[in-house]
Amino acid sequence: MIASGGMFMSSLVRLVEYAEASPEVRAVYDKIMTARGTDWINNFWKALANDPALLGRVWASVQQVMAPGALDPLTKEMVYLAVSATNNCEYCSYSHTAAARRKGMTDAMLMELMAVVGLANENNRLANGLRIPVDEQFKAQP
Amino acid sequence: MIASGGMFMSSLVRLVEYAEASPEVRAVYDKIMTARGTDWINNFWKALANDPALLGRVWASVQQVMAPGALDPLTKEMVYLAVSATNNCEYCSYSHTAAARRKGMTDAMLMELMAVVGLANENNRLANGLRIPVDEQFKAQP
Amino acid sequence: MIASGGMFMSSLVRLVEYAEASPEVRAVYDKIMTARGTDWINNFWKALANDPALLGRVWASVQQVMAPGALDPLTKEMVYLAVSATNNCEYCSYSHTAAARRKGMTDAMLMELMAVVGLANENNRLANGLRIPVDEQFKAQP
Amino acid sequence: MIASGGMFMSSLVRLVEYAEASPEVRAVYDKIMTARGTDWINNFWKALANDPALLGRVWASVQQVMAPGALDPLTKEMVYLAVSATNNCEYCSYSHTAAARRKGMTDAMLMELMAVVGLANENNRLANGLRIPVDEQFKAQP
Amino acid sequence: MIASGGMFMSSLVRLVEYAEASPEVRAVYDKIMTARGTDWINNFWKALANDPALLGRVWASVQQVMAPGALDPLTKEMVYLAVSATNNCEYCSYSHTAAARRKGMTDAMLMELMAVVGLANENNRLANGLRIPVDEQFKAQP
Amino acid sequence: MIASGGMFMSSLVRLVEYAEASPEVRAVYDKIMTARGTDWINNFWKALANDPALLGRVWASVQQVMAPGALDPLTKEMVYLAVSATNNCEYCSYSHTAAARRKGMTDAMLMELMAVVGLANENNRLANGLRIPVDEQFKAQP
Repeated sequence: MIASGGMFMSSLVRLVEYAEASPEVRAVYDKIMTARGTDWINNFWKALANDPALLGRVWASVQQVMAPGALDPLTKEMVYLAVSATNNCEYCSYSHTAAARRKGMTDAMLMELMAVVGLANENNRLANGLRIPVDEQFKAQP
Repeated sequence: MIASGGMFMSSLVRLVEYAEASPEVRAVYDKIMTARGTDWINNFWKALANDPALLGRVWASVQQVMAPGALDPLTKEMVYLAVSATNNCEYCSYSHTAAARRKGMTDAMLMELMAVVGLANENNRLANGLRIPVDEQFKAQP
Repeated sequence: MIASGGMFMSSLVRLVEYAEASPEVRAVYDKIMTARGTDWINNFWKALANDPALLGRVWASVQQVMAPGALDPLTKEMVYLAVSATNNCEYCSYSHTAAARRKGMTDAMLMELMAVVGLANENNRLANGLRIPVDEQFKAQP
Repeated sequence: MIASGGMFMSSLVRLVEYAEASPEVRAVYDKIMTARGTDWINNFWKALANDPALLGRVWASVQQVMAPGALDPLTKEMVYLAVSATNNCEYCSYSHTAAARRKGMTDAMLMELMAVVGLANENNRLANGLRIPVDEQFKAQP
Repeated sequence: MIASGGMFMSSLVRLVEYAEASPEVRAVYDKIMTARGTDWINNFWKALANDPALLGRVWASVQQVMAPGALDPLTKEMVYLAVSATNNCEYCSYSHTAAARRKGMTDAMLMELMAVVGLANENNRLANGLRIPVDEQFKAQP
Repeated sequence: MIASGGMFMSSLVRLVEYAEASPEVRAVYDKIMTARGTDWINNFWKALANDPALLGRVWASVQQVMAPGALDPLTKEMVYLAVSATNNCEYCSYSHTAAARRKGMTDAMLMELMAVVGLANENNRLANGLRIPVDEQFKAQP
């Protein structure tokens, strides 16, 4: 937990460090570090560790959902960033921009990604705000 | 405009048909049909046509932003869908799912896309709700 | 309550009609009709009437907030529409577009309003998604 | 108002201190301190005090809505937190976590609350993003 | 899939019926019906079944998160409803209102729940819109 | 870019200063400073400058959308602020409050604006959360 003062903010729950973690939490921490080839745990997991079942479930979900499949991992990271920008999640924007860059996202890709995010947010409101009815031609799906 | 009755909803402005459109609006409609190789205009543009400057600007923006660049057009369509799902835009979800399918999106890709969208929305709220501070390691950007 | 069937949806609580309403609810209904010079109650209030204290409080808030003040009532209706478009509230978009039109909003004004709403939604995400720091020059406020 | 510098941010309006407040504002401040048994006013009310009618109305609303009723006050605080997490309101997350803890919320309860908030945000987007139609069985309400 | 026509909307993917489902999907469907003591599957799961891994994961998450724990199941359903109202998820509002009613939620409880949801949404925007700084007293957490 | 340390955050892309900008970017910067009668560029544009096409397009959109028309520029700024408050865009709230004040917005107007924003956000959720059907009387539009 970051020391308080000025605009410094601490999280609303303790950040559980490895040294003080239960064996159940340490087991997940070990999986995270092994999967990522790192020797540290980022704050997101340290906060979730206050509920070991939540920690284990969310980590397993991330592993399943972000794995290569019909979409490649970099595309998935960029989709994740698009949602985080729309929802204004500072933590997720920082952590997943770092992740996307490790997977090959360039500045040019990030800028184009944000251009699409901006445009979609604009057009979503034009369509919703004017209550534009869906064309019959689009309803043939699936 | 769809005839009213029951839950049938009309848009909040008239949908401007080609036959009644001004030359300025017809010029944009012609560009849209040429670019898409279709002979009809979908309701989104018919609603925007109530403000010809808006119609022209948004169409030009779509052409610029969704064009191939550092990201390919299919990836851009899926990012657009991710935002539309997060914002609950029914019109955009229908129209851009159709567009993404024309560009090669399969059901498997759509399902994985939504899995990422769901997960990001979940984790965005865990990070925001618990006010988890950004790790120093993520701040080295750019 | 609308009869069910197909896509017809009913509200999640009963819509309280005047004939069946308690004296407490009727008193608010009477105030609404008097203030508006109408002889009917729209569904929003009929739904809130399941909680008479909520009905009374929200009606009083609307009366206070939407009254002429530093801002005129039409500007307030358009601000209300901007929020409703951003939040995708179908009910509020229909009811407050009707209200704004009664107060003088033209189609041209509605279209410009939505253009601003769309642009703000776009730029909000560019600023949030790229985590752009606030300039010192803007912090001198108030 | 907090002195500016670095990332330090001030609010967009002055924070009205008791010493400089009008009698109308002081009357509300006194009610707040009495209701809470405290001798200080938090910034939320100091900002609203720039519009005494708004200050009075919002305080009265909080008193009415958060009071014991069909739901107990702690449940109401947790619902408030769930909304604040979904909307990413930093101020509200801090102030209402403090309030919920005073009413008995433990860390275990907070973590489970956030788990539900996360899951609902995920499933909301799966349902909205795939445009899943509501089952007839759920429409029988109320 | 609901037959199309007028405003009738189909989902963006096929709804997988039991009769046509793979053994992997049927296994989850069986678990759902057993857990709920019902003989039908609602559309949410039929849509997710297009991605059996997603279906299995989300069902397991719901079972884990919504189970009794530090919070009781009815409180969890109401928190779920608060998020769904904030995000405007029609499907989730219908399905989880039904679930909450089966667990004992009365109309009075639903109305108070929505009153809190409304108030939190209002105050979230007052705090965010005016950029009100968090008081030092609230930062002592945890 | 702001030097890092503590809670100090940098943007996710470099902020392009005039001295290092390409001729294409400088041309837009010059237009911005001329239009505003200032000698500095705020961070929003410096971040967009990483994608000169995006920079040019967004600046042109702002010029078109925020210009006097059926709505006056101050009303447009306040609508922009209403959206930014609803979406929790810190950058936009600071920069457009400054812009609105330059165009004549007083504290009293800002407070009334936020009161409307808060009320609309509250009522949007009451209508959406209770799934209140739109009255036939409101569907006659346009």
